[in-house]
Order: sequence, then C-alpha cells, then structure tokens
Amino acid sequence: MNRRSFLQAAGGLAASRLWGQAKRRPNFIFILADDLGWGDLGCYGNRSIKTPSLDRMAKQGTLFTQFYVNNPVCSPSRTAFMTSHFPAHHRIHGHLATPEMNEKRGMPNFLDPKVTTVAHLLQKAGYRTAHFGKWHLGSGPGAPTPAEYGFDEHKTVNSNGNTFSEKDPYFRAKSTGLLVDETLRFIEQSKDKPFYVNLWTLVPHAILNPTEEQMQVYARLTPGGGIPHKGALQIYYSSVTNLDQEIGRLLKRLDEMGLADNTLVAFSSDNGPEDIHILNASHSAAGSPGPFRGRKRSLYEGGVRVPFIVRLPGQVPAGRVESRAVVTGVDWLPSICRLAGVQVPADVKPQGEDMSDTWLGASRERTKPIFWEWRFNIAGYNVNRSPMLSIRHGRWKLLMNPDRSRVELFDIPQDPMELNNLADKNPKVVSDLSAKLLEWHKSLPLGPVDASAGKNDYPWPK
Amino acid sequence: MNRRSFLQAAGGLAASRLWGQAKRRPNFIFILADDLGWGDLGCYGNRSIKTPSLDRMAKQGTLFTQFYVNNPVCSPSRTAFMTSHFPAHHRIHGHLATPEMNEKRGMPNFLDPKVTTVAHLLQKAGYRTAHFGKWHLGSGPGAPTPAEYGFDEHKTVNSNGNTFSEKDPYFRAKSTGLLVDETLRFIEQSKDKPFYVNLWTLVPHAILNPTEEQMQVYARLTPGGGIPHKGALQIYYSSVTNLDQEIGRLLKRLDEMGLADNTLVAFSSDNGPEDIHILNASHSAAGSPGPFRGRKRSLYEGGVRVPFIVRLPGQVPAGRVESRAVVTGVDWLPSICRLAGVQVPADVKPQGEDMSDTWLGASRERTKPIFWEWRFNIAGYNVNRSPMLSIRHGRWKLLMNPDRSRVELFDIPQDPMELNNLADKNPKVVSDLSAKLLEWHKSLPLGPVDASAGKNDYPWPK
Repeated sequence: MNRRSFLQAAGGLAASRLWGQAKRRPNFIFILADDLGWGDLGCYGNRSIKTPSLDRMAKQGTLFTQFYVNNPVCSPSRTAFMTSHFPAHHRIHGHLATPEMNEKRGMPNFLDPKVTTVAHLLQKAGYRTAHFGKWHLGSGPGAPTPAEYGFDEHKTVNSNGNTFSEKDPYFRAKSTGLLVDETLRFIEQSKDKPFYVNLWTLVPHAILNPTEEQMQVYARLTPGGGIPHKGALQIYYSSVTNLDQEIGRLLKRLDEMGLADNTLVAFSSDNGPEDIHILNASHSAAGSPGPFRGRKRSLYEGGVRVPFIVRLPGQVPAGRVESRAVVTGVDWLPSICRLAGVQVPADVKPQGEDMSDTWLGASRERTKPIFWEWRFNIAGYNVNRSPMLSIRHGRWKLLMNPDRSRVELFDIPQDPMELNNLADKNPKVVSDLSAKLLEWHKSLPLGPVDASAGKNDYPWPK
Repeated sequence: MNRRSFLQAAGGLAASRLWGQAKRRPNFIFILADDLGWGDLGCYGNRSIKTPSLDRMAKQGTLFTQFYVNNPVCSPSRTAFMTSHFPAHHRIHGHLATPEMNEKRGMPNFLDPKVTTVAHLLQKAGYRTAHFGKWHLGSGPGAPTPAEYGFDEHKTVNSNGNTFSEKDPYFRAKSTGLLVDETLRFIEQSKDKPFYVNLWTLVPHAILNPTEEQMQVYARLTPGGGIPHKGALQIYYSSVTNLDQEIGRLLKRLDEMGLADNTLVAFSSDNGPEDIHILNASHSAAGSPGPFRGRKRSLYEGGVRVPFIVRLPGQVPAGRVESRAVVTGVDWLPSICRLAGVQVPADVKPQGEDMSDTWLGASRERTKPIFWEWRFNIAGYNVNRSPMLSIRHGRWKLLMNPDRSRVELFDIPQDPMELNNLADKNPKVVSDLSAKLLEWHKSLPLGPVDASAGKNDYPWPK
C-alpha cells in the first residue's frame, strides 16, 4: 500500500477496521521528556545542542510545529495526556506536592483513579501496558500505584508502587538509560500482545548532574582559566544529548527486533523550559523555548508549545513537517484509541479531538478550541508573565484575566512571538473568544488563586 | 544653604561660580560596573540579590530610572562617557578585540587619544585624575596608555601601561577590593587638589569565580543532594554582593576621611546583563534587566538602560527617585564639567547635554535625542533581538533597520517593556523620528555590518 492509498484508506475506513484487516494493531511508545523546550532539538532549529537521534526520528516520521500541552507545568500536563480532559476539571492546577501544599492550592493529592485513562482503555482492549519513569500524578499516603490507572507494569519516580531508588547522585544522569532498559525488557516479554508504553523521562528537569563522560562533548562550553565551576550550557546540553542517545538506542533495538514498522513512537515534552530563578534550576536557563516568548509556568507559547514527533514507518509520512494542524495533549487519548481500533466510551467525554489523521498525513485545522488556566505566580522575567487564562482557536490566541484585564490577542501563525497585540483591531474576535474562554473558566471547580496570578507588575523604585 | 535655596542658586548661577564662591570644587568618583543589569540592585527592585551599600547610597542620593548607556556593549559605551560623543562617530562599534577582529569589523584598535576626554579637561583644570580597573578603550601594540587620555595615575586591565596581574584564578573575585584600595590610596595622596577617579569594576562580567567565602551568603541557591555544581544564581549574586560590599567600604572611608560632603559618587553600568549563550558566560542568565525586554547587545531597554545613582550629600537631594529626566552616557562630560566649573571647549562638540541640574534636584525632559546603532548579531532569544538603529526622543523610542524594515515605536513611560508597537497609530511620529535617525546614521563612518544584524529570524523546521 503506497502512501496515497493508505491515506485514502485511513480517510475512508474506520482505523479499527483498517488495523483489523491487517491483523496487527500498532504498538505505542510515548516518550515524554520533562521541561524540554520547543527549541531544544536540532530538528526544531537548535544550532548548539546535538540531538542526532531525535533529528533522525523526525526525518523518519512527522514533526509538528504547533503542538501544545494543556498546562505549563508537569502534573496537569500529564493529566491531560492520560485523560483527554483539561486538567483543571480534575483540580490538578499545578505540580502534585505535599498534602499541605496541595490543600493550600485547592488540589487533590492524586488523579482520581476512577477517571478513565488511555491505559485503562488499551489494557481493556487487550494491550499490554506499562509506565516507566516519571509519574507525578500523585504519590504518598493514600495515592494509588500506576497499576490502578491501567498499567500492567510500572517502575517509576514521583509515585507509589514499584519505584526506582534515587540515592545515587548520578541517578538522574543515568535514568533515561534505565528507562530504555525497562522498556526493552517489557517489550521482549510482551510478544504475544500489542503493547503501550509510557516512557516518561526525568531529564532535562532540574536538578541535573550529568556524569563527566556525558559532559565531554560540551567541554568547550565551560569557562577556562582554572575556573572550577561547570558551565550551565555544558550541564544542560549534555543532559539533553544523553537523552537523545538513549532514545537512539531504543529506536535501533526496535529495528533489530523487527518491531519498528508496527510501533508508533511519539516524542514530546510536558511543558516549556524551566526558568533559572527556580531554586535548584541553576542551569535551566540554557533550555530553549525556540523563538517564543515565555518559559515554564507561562501561557505564552514558550510555556506550552513543545516538540511533537511521531514515527511509524510506512504509515506516518517520513520527513514531513506539519505546520498547519494544531494538536494538543487532550487529543492523545482519542487519537491513540483510533489508531488502536479502540472505541472511546461515551462516558469518557474527551475534551480533545481525534487528530490521528494529521499524524497519518492529513493537513487540516482542528475543530475544537484549546483552553488554559494558570492560577499561580510566574517566576522570572516580566515579558514571560502571562495573564491567567488563554484560548487558542483557529489562528487566534487570546490571553486575559478572569476580570477581563490584560486582554491580548495574537495571530499565532503570523506572530508566533506574541508581540503584536491585535485586540484593539479585532473587537469581534475578542468578544467571541473571551466569551468562550470565560464560559469555560466558569465550568471549572473553584479554588485558591495567587494574589500575583495574571499580573506582570514590577517593584519600580519610588 | 537648604535644598531649595541651593537649587535656586544652581538654577540661577553658573555652577562654576557657585563652586568658586564656596572655594571648594567637588571631587568625583565614577564607579562603573561591567555587565550589571538595571534590575540587579535592591534599590532597582531586585528581591533576591543583597546590595545594602548601593541601596543606602541611593537613599543618600538620587536614583535615576531612565538612564541609558550609548551602546549595548563595553568599549563603545565607555567611549561615550569619556568623550561625550556617540561611539560610532569614532568607529567604536563593539568591544575592542584583536587587531584582526577589529579590522574585520571596521574598528580602530583604540580610541584616538587626540579626542578630548573628561579626564583631559579636568586634569587641565587642576584636578588630580586617575583610572582604576577595566579600561577597554584599546590595548596591545601601539595603543596608548590611559595616561595619554588625561589620567595622572592608572592601574588597569584590558589596557596598556600599569596593569594588574590576572594570574590568580580568584583575581576577578578580589578585584573590586583591589580597586577600592587603589582609589583610597590615590585620594589620600591627592589632598592638595580636587580629584576625579574612574573606578571601573571587572565584576559582574563573565568569567565569574567568587571565592567560597563570598558565596556563603547564597549557599541555599546551589542544588543539594550531593550535586557538585555551583548554581549560576549563587555565582552571580555572590559577585554582585561582593561588589556592593566593597563600594560600601569605599563610602565608609570617604565619611571617615571627611570627604563625603565634597565628593560626588556616581554608580552605573556599561550595558545590560550578559546572555547565557555567550561562551564562558554560563552564570550570566542570573543577571536581571528588570522589567525590560533585551539584554547585552540589544537596543531594547534591557540592553542599554542601566542603573544610575548619584550621591553628594547636601547638594544632590537625598532619597529622590528621578523618573522623568532621561539621562545618558554622552551627558557625563558636560555635566561633570559644569559641576567642576570647567568650560567645555567649543571644539569638543559634545553630543550629549549638561543634565547636572537634574542631578541637583531639577526634574525636566532632555532636549537632545539619543541615538544608537548596533551592527552585529545579537546572541540569545529572539524577543531580545532588536533592529539595528534606535532613537529616544521625548516619550518615544523608535527602532528600525537602515532599510526601513522592522519599524517599532514604543511609548516608553507607558510601555517600558516595549511590547506595544504603536508605529501604525502614529505615522507622523514615525516619519519625524525615522528621518532624524536615518540622518544621524548617514553621518556615521561606514563599515562592515553582520548579515544577521537587525534581524530576528528563526530557523524554523521545514
């Protein structure tokens, strides 16, 4: 089947029937990096960090330029991938922390395991399912293990259940390798069934401590002259390059195992790059949001727009850059289910959209808007501090506060840097989008909001 | 003389006559930090870096919120302070480097010593003059020593003549202390005459290597868990705090020597904070441009707007924040001459303006525009990459390229972050200011321009 006829088939038939005919349902490996920016990969324009494996994966598959996570930090962004729901609906507004801190922010201690996840659905449909690496959907007293969310196997951090020891100060530096090892072991033991693996890395989230060997390639980026301090660029770049190498090893083994052509591998990140002003993130200013304004915690593009690469040789077009389709975290569950031939039950009520046709080669606009809320402070420079609410619909992105202050409208394809506020020129667009956005906001459970949320004041000298 | 009557006197009489009557001409100490951002001091809104001495100095004197250097990097910015000329007129467009690199960029190897400097004028008027610290107005074969620029004494780096040894890897960490020592020694030996001292620090320019003792106060900013790498925040903040402590020591000794009331002390910086993407500047993302867009090399505010604090107890109003007057580097020479009672010779042709009345308590707008040119690449994030030319006149700042591309007009008092481009709404302002700016640009000596100058493109995936 050539590409055109495949696309016609994908367009004309239910994917379930298509995969059923072929008697092979695809496997899935979802690699989710932690705090990696849109601009941190060579294939996304980075000219300093070496990421040959992911660049090759993009050449073998399709790279999306307009992929968004549904929150600019970890736990809520992950919730969206798992549930197809905007995370604020489950009151997961920020990172899951101590019970005291969660309560203070009006958050539960873990994602309700009764909420249907993509793993639940695939497990029920006969897939072998596993989660390796960062969890961050709840841990500590009373929190379920990943098993309750639909995973046959798990070995995780920020979690309960089967966890990694983090005692070695180089654990994080070596962790991607360990996760790839687990994934390959799991795959070898799952030959009788299709499989779904979340491989959620710990890197390049702070604290980074790459080994001397990992840092060799960037030795020139540390100051000379007998200065003892390693450079932030060297620390960060080495970490990303090790992540890339380990993903390269995984892809190579898939080839060797004869699984490449039947295993969809996706790569993304949970949010934009970290800000240096966060305690312990002293190297993280080296992370790149690409051309975008904003970093982690910001609703500007740099906080929520991240890499998204999909590879499935022979089915996902190779070497394609898809710049039209806007795809987002809540689309993951319906898209995966479609490709796996799994019907999404009506009670799941996905808030995203099946965008799998765009993975398979279609170029189209999405039909549903994307909504964001951020109710806390935003660390770092004023230009990155966004309003509290945001909506992307068509070419437009509107940012505003719930009290209708700071209304900013950007034409994203024309102005991806979000510097040219067109609100005054487009009152009708503002009126329509703000109505949608505030209606969505009203539908969310209420909770505490930081006094500085949505503000970009500066303590001017007086 | 109380403040009001002093101000009346300053407004009504030539300052020369005023000082002459009092039979004491003021001494001057000009402390110029290197790569320190507008937002790096507590008194400029920083909530993390401890700078009690400079905060106290601001309380004892006047803090300007709208002070600009005349170029976003070192050598040209320093040229402007020394000569009262926009540095491009002397073809000093960037940092003075090797002869090969200077030639490639159409630059001389040093500032022409025939150009009259503020030190020449004060020396001729009977002042004892000295320059301690960073020079960076030319060094190497054929370059004059600071003596030829009007300094009776000098001990410098980036210079010829009497230089510091930089062999100790902690030299930079200790350098501000050494400069304060030199300054105090010089002052003690200059009792018979008024004095003028440039105390131009090496800190917080990269490479920073603070001592363990200096870093103690920020120990909490380095990651725990057995990680060996010092945090960038700890390295940078410690360096600024040491700078502050040494300035505190200088001010205390001036008090003890009975010189405080007759010594004008000014503090500023040569440009905005460095960008982390410069080799060896691995900690420099910790430097703060305050609320502004842009860092070093950018013509946006963060690159050229820097601290300016003036203290002269009894004459410069204490605890005053001056937010109206726009003051700039080329104003230094005429303002100092005025306060010293020195007539600026006609052939000097200052391109700045005597703004000393605003130091002494007046609040007024300047009459002359300020012009900037930057003809090289700009490192770092796209949002910081400005057009090549800029003019500030009244409330307006216009940025554009010589080919009239990227025309951006900002109302700076209303929009200090430079996010709201008002060019479309104000065609007359754009027309007037662009004419002035291009006319100025035409008056400059021609020279090589980087292909990427004035651009903010990004290598988008294709």
